[in-house]
Amino acid sequence: MQRIPPQTGVGLRLRTGDRLVVVDPTGGQVSDLFCVAGDGGDDWLSNGRTIDYGNTMYFSTGDTLYSNLSRPMLTIEQDTCGKHDFLLTPCSQATFDLLYPEFGGAPHPSCFDNLCAALGPLGVEPGTISTTFNIFMNVWFEADGTMHIDPPISGAGDRFVVRAEMDLLVGVTACSAEKSNGGECKPIDVEVIPESPATE
Amino acid sequence: MQRIPPQTGVGLRLRTGDRLVVVDPTGGQVSDLFCVAGDGGDDWLSNGRTIDYGNTMYFSTGDTLYSNLSRPMLTIEQDTCGKHDFLLTPCSQATFDLLYPEFGGAPHPSCFDNLCAALGPLGVEPGTISTTFNIFMNVWFEADGTMHIDPPISGAGDRFVVRAEMDLLVGVTACSAEKSNGGECKPIDVEVIPESPATE
Repeated sequence: MQRIPPQTGVGLRLRTGDRLVVVDPTGGQVSDLFCVAGDGGDDWLSNGRTIDYGNTMYFSTGDTLYSNLSRPMLTIEQDTCGKHDFLLTPCSQATFDLLYPEFGGAPHPSCFDNLCAALGPLGVEPGTISTTFNIFMNVWFEADGTMHIDPPISGAGDRFVVRAEMDLLVGVTACSAEKSNGGECKPIDVEVIPESPATE
Repeated sequence: MQRIPPQTGVGLRLRTGDRLVVVDPTGGQVSDLFCVAGDGGDDWLSNGRTIDYGNTMYFSTGDTLYSNLSRPMLTIEQDTCGKHDFLLTPCSQATFDLLYPEFGGAPHPSCFDNLCAALGPLGVEPGTISTTFNIFMNVWFEADGTMHIDPPISGAGDRFVVRAEMDLLVGVTACSAEKSNGGECKPIDVEVIPESPATE
């Protein structure tokens, strides 16, 4: 199990069949996930395709996350929390500048910058990073569309496990936005479980 | 006023301050809109940023649509319908293959292909086309996230007018998915009104 310190991120390679385990070690912490094809395809994680094919805006155990080219990328195999967001973009410097004037435009860590840093060395351009799957993020909407971002309902040890349906390059963060994380940015733990452990 | 025949699309250039008028001439017809920066920037229309900054999933008069780089792209100046979608991707061949088995995998016109054809000559790659703003599309969600796509509530002559907040390359379609359009795919009318009409 690898610890992602608060307000940072990691880049990972998954092969088809590998599992990615994301754990909230303290409770109440969001983790943004983005991925692109690792097999040379021009695919990236698409919330629009996933919502259309899943016929829902909320996703949990058994649901498949699709690419913009309609290929299955990830299947959710375990979800002990049950509340995640797939509508919002990763927080960026512009997010803090626009939504949090109390920071006065000062540089602030962000999931977007952390995903760029994590995925850049794997060859992923910043312009490819669109809407993330925001694990443990508690976003809900009134019938008139008004959005609410509440503290995550995840408790210490809650797990979110996905299976790679294709080779993938994955970025995972411990989210940097205080307000989305109950006022305090905390770590996230991740582990890659290979489908076929090396036997050598 | 330019007529977009059923199940086709057009590519347009807008300069800052230009208005794009989209009219549903018959009622009950969806029009997918996508745009990218026309000023050399690496921006494309982002539902995630727009939802985050607007604090809503539904958009109408007075709302601004943002790019992935958090720049304002379009402001909605007039909306006589009031019901649009900004969560779903444009219908594609894969959409019909996956969601409409009754078509048996036969080639079907799609908003994605029509946007590719409309925006390709303007230099926009297919992989850049993500979630569209789906004018007049009637998508709503139950509290548990379950999605419903109902026929548009737009009547004949309903208008949707946006102002370009930056130079833009825009693709607009008359949507190709029968089920999203009350069973019949109909035309859409568009007009670009320059901010400063040529006086020469």
